[in-house]
Amino acid sequence: MDQLTDVFTAISHPTRRAIIGQLAAGPARFTDIAKPFDTALNSVTKHLKLLERAGLIERKKLGREVLISFRAEPLRQVAGWVHEYERFWNTQLDQFEQHFKDKKRKEKKK
Amino acid sequence: MDQLTDVFTAISHPTRRAIIGQLAAGPARFTDIAKPFDTALNSVTKHLKLLERAGLIERKKLGREVLISFRAEPLRQVAGWVHEYERFWNTQLDQFEQHFKDKKRKEKKK
Repeated sequence: MDQLTDVFTAISHPTRRAIIGQLAAGPARFTDIAKPFDTALNSVTKHLKLLERAGLIERKKLGREVLISFRAEPLRQVAGWVHEYERFWNTQLDQFEQHFKDKKRKEKKK
Repeated sequence: MDQLTDVFTAISHPTRRAIIGQLAAGPARFTDIAKPFDTALNSVTKHLKLLERAGLIERKKLGREVLISFRAEPLRQVAGWVHEYERFWNTQLDQFEQHFKDKKRKEKKK
């Protein structure tokens, strides 16, 4: 699997996107990460593994505690990939706007 | 499942990203889409279903043929989501650059 696939897979689950949102506020311990989710700890562990494989989180030992922090760098690839298609939705929006402009013009003529 | 999840799931597979890349060049028939992939037609059908569920492709009847075309609009949500984290990788890069500037300065002092 390529890295882009790992990153897209990691962010494809709403719980993992919520974990990213949570960690964006600052590093947290495992128990704090798990707290907001009504899900088994085992399932949180699996979500964190997928985020770690994608390079989106890292674990750091701080004394006897392990702090988990967010790494945004892999999301740059996502931005790069989606940027390739930006011109398409801009074009499609332009066509959409044009459609309504044409419609207005026709209505005025009536 | 929310729509963002459908879109991320759709683009999380390299074959589906390749199909998007192919259709970005213009609409195509099913057989043309399947041709470059060394995979069962049944598997291509499944990939197209996931792309369709995410709103990334649409099928149009043109006489007796069905043409499949790319719809970029759902990718706008992906861009929006990733944009939220842009400041993080910019900050992290800044820290990275600062680290090397500091290193250079120290080396000059030696």
